[in-house]
Amino acid sequence: MAHFPEAFERLTEQFAKLPGVGMKSAQRMAFYILNQTPEEAEAFARAILDAKRSVRRCAVCQNLTESEVCPLCSEGGGRDRSVICVVSEPRDVTALERSHEYNGLYHVLHGAISPLRRVGPDDIAIRELLARLNDGAVREVILATNPDTEGEATAMYISRLIKPLGLRVTRIAYGVPVGGSLEFADDATLLRALEGRREL
Amino acid sequence: MAHFPEAFERLTEQFAKLPGVGMKSAQRMAFYILNQTPEEAEAFARAILDAKRSVRRCAVCQNLTESEVCPLCSEGGGRDRSVICVVSEPRDVTALERSHEYNGLYHVLHGAISPLRRVGPDDIAIRELLARLNDGAVREVILATNPDTEGEATAMYISRLIKPLGLRVTRIAYGVPVGGSLEFADDATLLRALEGRREL
Repeated sequence: MAHFPEAFERLTEQFAKLPGVGMKSAQRMAFYILNQTPEEAEAFARAILDAKRSVRRCAVCQNLTESEVCPLCSEGGGRDRSVICVVSEPRDVTALERSHEYNGLYHVLHGAISPLRRVGPDDIAIRELLARLNDGAVREVILATNPDTEGEATAMYISRLIKPLGLRVTRIAYGVPVGGSLEFADDATLLRALEGRREL
Repeated sequence: MAHFPEAFERLTEQFAKLPGVGMKSAQRMAFYILNQTPEEAEAFARAILDAKRSVRRCAVCQNLTESEVCPLCSEGGGRDRSVICVVSEPRDVTALERSHEYNGLYHVLHGAISPLRRVGPDDIAIRELLARLNDGAVREVILATNPDTEGEATAMYISRLIKPLGLRVTRIAYGVPVGGSLEFADDATLLRALEGRREL
């Protein structure tokens, strides 16, 4: 790699940090940037800065949003405010919304409890979830964390915290393939998973 | 994708433009940026702008550089200034340098003639190559474009232009696998390709 300019190498290194990108691909990406017009390259840089600056967590459900409260939480009517579906990642909200089956609210944890990766209950948005259960409007919490070890552990942990509050706590059914990722489930599977949810 | 903030979608679209990146990977990359510290995201954006601003073509060999003339062309002694090795891309220079076999100068065409992709002789740095042959210092031009149809056509085109000037024009031997790409050749193959070069 000795004969590329330093600024080129630095860009390659940045691309190589991205998930699933090796040095060879990173280099191709850097060449792609050099072949863009200055305007295109600036648009790319601006998109990074804009996303980083303006995207934050909804004050209520912690999903990604550009406003104080996300459109789903602030939506006037239509959504059932007595049910909260708890997921690990923002993309899981998208997956569930795509199934057009669920009409309640969401809560995004931004992770799952994982002793191996040193993610504890305080590292994900569990505290924010508990705060939402105090107003008496919520009657059911659906735990829709991933059907893998970490998601299961997270669901168990949360259910033990919430059940004493007298709320209905359910777990989505194992319609979603065990060991898989919620994100890749098809709509029919998500539908069955929601329908078959069981008391914890 | 309806429930991600717009700034997030815009960033995803930028990543999806990169070679070999689909929508799913682009989304993962955008999430990666959101999980970076503001300083890290800024470093990424800056690397794009820096590379675009400061990396240009060497006034002599057209290889990528941050100075007016690249280190290889301006190198005081050591390089044999009577031979120019013509390649398609900057990464090909890196590949040949890695073999530690070649000690002459380079010329980077930035592409290859391709009627299908509408790349003609004027779209690559052939004119700049011809300008370098006027000073009488160059005695041999090695055509090391890729051993594929486009690289072969480019080599033929250039050889027809240069041979009337009375220079030795050679083509690297088919030690490099036919139909392949110079970039992925191993050092031994590149060595044999250079050694076995033949008169055109």
